[in-house]
Amino acid sequence: MTPPLIQLVDIPQRGDARGGLSVVELGGALPFPVRRVYWIHGTAPGVSRGFHAHKQLRQLCVCVAGSVRLSLFDGRREESVVLDSNSQGLLIGPGLWREMHDFSPGSVLMVFADAEYDEADYIRSKEAFIESTHAG
Amino acid sequence: MTPPLIQLVDIPQRGDARGGLSVVELGGALPFPVRRVYWIHGTAPGVSRGFHAHKQLRQLCVCVAGSVRLSLFDGRREESVVLDSNSQGLLIGPGLWREMHDFSPGSVLMVFADAEYDEADYIRSKEAFIESTHAG
Repeated sequence: MTPPLIQLVDIPQRGDARGGLSVVELGGALPFPVRRVYWIHGTAPGVSRGFHAHKQLRQLCVCVAGSVRLSLFDGRREESVVLDSNSQGLLIGPGLWREMHDFSPGSVLMVFADAEYDEADYIRSKEAFIESTHAG
Repeated sequence: MTPPLIQLVDIPQRGDARGGLSVVELGGALPFPVRRVYWIHGTAPGVSRGFHAHKQLRQLCVCVAGSVRLSLFDGRREESVVLDSNSQGLLIGPGLWREMHDFSPGSVLMVFADAEYDEADYIRSKEAFIESTHAG
């Protein structure tokens, strides 16, 4: 049995009558201190994004407005999931080709990463990525 | 001259024809590794939030959807600012009483903090807060 590519984490909800409040923190849903945060917003209709893998980077993705479909590929299997909830995050470890599709209008996808930007950590060719996964 | 209570930071925009992408990272707009992230969403109409100070915690706030008005009070002066942009963040250091007002429908306020939740770090009485600021 191989583990699933899609690793979802439950995000604690601390909302009350005032409204919603969601939390990720160390010791809870956040597995690493965050050294970089980026967020994708105002995505043009029909646009897909991603199309790369990371050698080392770990990320936690949460769609805090609207929805997006994220697919992960390990060189053999591909799995995808729709993120559309403040109560669910997707963990993406190293060595996974990721694509983002079907951004809804007004969607905001937050990505919390364990390291600063480093171009050397990217694999931007799918062919090179597949070769790297078969090298081991 | 006393420094302003409202400390805004510019958030780099890496968007292109596909849409927007905003980034905060160490060495850039993020002054500390993030150990806790929370976000306020689905706020009921007319609700205000906050009404506390922190003894030590540092936070960076970004309104990634809609708008909210944030006011800060140091025991003597009060200043407020409307956050409504992916390109601007508000840094809140220790020793400031904060209130959040005028959440727009659909607003999402992200808060990046340098420490995990610790009830002992909160000052929840405005009277006690004012006393603490005059104690020094």
